[in-house]
Amino acid sequence: MIPFRKMHGLGNDFVVIDNRHGQWSLTTDQVRLVSDRRFGVGCDQLIIMEAVEGDADLFMRIYNPDGSESGACGNATRCVASLAMKERGLDQVLIKTRRGNLHATAAEAGDITVDMGNALIDWRDVPLSEEMDTLSLPIQLGSLENPVAVGMGNPHCVFFVEDADSLPLEKLGPQVEHHPLFPERTNVELATIRPNGSIRLRVWERGAGKTLACGSGACATLVAAVRRGLSARQAEIELDGGVLKMQWLENGHVLMTGAVATAFIGELDL
Amino acid sequence: MIPFRKMHGLGNDFVVIDNRHGQWSLTTDQVRLVSDRRFGVGCDQLIIMEAVEGDADLFMRIYNPDGSESGACGNATRCVASLAMKERGLDQVLIKTRRGNLHATAAEAGDITVDMGNALIDWRDVPLSEEMDTLSLPIQLGSLENPVAVGMGNPHCVFFVEDADSLPLEKLGPQVEHHPLFPERTNVELATIRPNGSIRLRVWERGAGKTLACGSGACATLVAAVRRGLSARQAEIELDGGVLKMQWLENGHVLMTGAVATAFIGELDL
Repeated sequence: MIPFRKMHGLGNDFVVIDNRHGQWSLTTDQVRLVSDRRFGVGCDQLIIMEAVEGDADLFMRIYNPDGSESGACGNATRCVASLAMKERGLDQVLIKTRRGNLHATAAEAGDITVDMGNALIDWRDVPLSEEMDTLSLPIQLGSLENPVAVGMGNPHCVFFVEDADSLPLEKLGPQVEHHPLFPERTNVELATIRPNGSIRLRVWERGAGKTLACGSGACATLVAAVRRGLSARQAEIELDGGVLKMQWLENGHVLMTGAVATAFIGELDL
Repeated sequence: MIPFRKMHGLGNDFVVIDNRHGQWSLTTDQVRLVSDRRFGVGCDQLIIMEAVEGDADLFMRIYNPDGSESGACGNATRCVASLAMKERGLDQVLIKTRRGNLHATAAEAGDITVDMGNALIDWRDVPLSEEMDTLSLPIQLGSLENPVAVGMGNPHCVFFVEDADSLPLEKLGPQVEHHPLFPERTNVELATIRPNGSIRLRVWERGAGKTLACGSGACATLVAAVRRGLSARQAEIELDGGVLKMQWLENGHVLMTGAVATAFIGELDL
């Protein structure tokens, strides 16, 4: 029996298996089975905690439900960081991923902050398909126009709109995702600045569709809002799954703070 | 912590909680949370095993994910029956539900057979909205025509077609579900008789859409096929989630036999 923990950050959900002792080895078929919401446990990503040498506290391996490996995930990092901190009585940890080391710290009320790295605002880094100012792209789709492009390791296309909740995201998302300006396709954000300075955000994720929460999308949206002069460098972003507190540091890094939760613990017989 | 078991019959999945000691009482909000696939455990139905007086071995309470109670579910009955049989070393059990007692027996290779009760073939019992022969309804939708209506406690509309897999069930299902001949709407079955006598079946469930497996739909399809002279009274039915072995007894009852599985066990902190 393999013990696991089902966790989520704003509804972005993970099966977390602690394999730091190296006892288990999952095949691609087993990853797919565990990720299946009817025949297995079900999750957006399957996370394996592994032992690591060097500075980092642990290595976080991230599997997509199709069995492929993913580079990094902000919400998963917060979940795994909360476990490692509790276990060791620490208020910060360094988590190694295939995309590099992620630094996480304890915040108020059990929230976890993760450093999501540099926001990329050069067109080559988003990437876009031709040279242009990422602050206003020549895209128009109905009432949507002139989005901001931001790279957070993945491409984002952020539209500022009057009322994000009134727009048909399911229809607009795929059209923007496959727009020829984005050679690697793009995540799509519909953002509304509220009178109190908070930001309402709905996200269409590249390859996944409408999701409850997207950490890199929240990062990209704060960066886009600051660059447009619509927000302070620190703001709360309200996603369908809950609220993230975001901060864009002067050094270019974006910090994401939010809740993590354990839905249940279980044991699998594979 | 509340221990639970995540089970499924052909991918029709259930959270099963043993509350025969009467220790727990779940609120509607808790039922919804447990049924949620991201914030809770996730399932098609939440099953509570309760103690019962009289002939039955236990009472099975069935909650839909919205917190409402459901009458009966063949796949859930098979799952709960397998637990009760294993626990007591029996090869048959009687399970009480809000719709009456369901009798289940052990079959080959760990499969479980459940008596799904009488098939209803009078138009009033399906129910249909006006008097007619349930063996051939005046419905035509593209290449679909003259379905058979069967009542299994819920209404079914079974079409026999050349190749069920080639038809757009997502488009046809809702049209038939809301056809005026069915005052309580209907489940929709697309069935193809294979040369070896087995039946390929795709199901559109009233209120739920396309599903991997529908026990009452398999019952209705066998009954419709026998009435049309297309099948023996015993046949295998291949659904998207797996195979059910069906039998229509001379006394009118339909027996359903199939596999049950435990995906994992867990503990919830509500």
